[in-house]
Amino acid sequence: MTYTIDRTFEGAAFDAIVERTRAALASQGFGVLTEIDVKATMKKKIDQDMDAYLILGACNPKMAFRAIGLEPKIGAMLPCNVIVRQTGGSVTVSAVDPVASMQAIANDGLHAVAGEVRAMLEKAVASV
Amino acid sequence: MTYTIDRTFEGAAFDAIVERTRAALASQGFGVLTEIDVKATMKKKIDQDMDAYLILGACNPKMAFRAIGLEPKIGAMLPCNVIVRQTGGSVTVSAVDPVASMQAIANDGLHAVAGEVRAMLEKAVASV
Repeated sequence: MTYTIDRTFEGAAFDAIVERTRAALASQGFGVLTEIDVKATMKKKIDQDMDAYLILGACNPKMAFRAIGLEPKIGAMLPCNVIVRQTGGSVTVSAVDPVASMQAIANDGLHAVAGEVRAMLEKAVASV
Repeated sequence: MTYTIDRTFEGAAFDAIVERTRAALASQGFGVLTEIDVKATMKKKIDQDMDAYLILGACNPKMAFRAIGLEPKIGAMLPCNVIVRQTGGSVTVSAVDPVASMQAIANDGLHAVAGEVRAMLEKAVASV
């Protein structure tokens, strides 16, 4: 089972794709609530080198509020992460598929909301 | 399938449990890289009221680095969230079970790392 919605940009500049990803998320009502520079964190904490890797925590507040109403502990899987990675000469954007990450949870109402959010993330990734 | 590791503290003060949770995570090598005040965010963004609800994004850098090496896109499911919620007169701490959230991913090496991280989160929650 795939667990991400992906798109790769050949020869693109990392920072440019990050900005386009932010704009694409905003166009679908997702705010970016958290941001982790994984490359910088690994260098600082354990002195390991890796390629550029950013985790953006995207949240559509109306959808999140509905999800929490249906499944109070779902915050354990929120926000929806969108990662931007340097992959050789390309930059890859991958949004988590909430239907995949939440499949362990037996809650049909939640799965319906997750399906709606997946569709919104698909539109966002397509518009980067 | 359960997807969280839970513990409820009857009659406890919310802020005190948050601080104890941070200390318990640190004792297992988890730094808190992100923090979302869900109650404040919902009030600000969509004017909805809810009980106190905090999402702490916990990361053990060594384990995260191993996981990314085995499964490059796993950042879509990192960091490991630990939520602290007001539940009536109690406060409930719930750490995500990474084995559950990552079950959609066909990668035995990753599942082994997720199992180790689950054990560390279990110890952290037990020591809050």
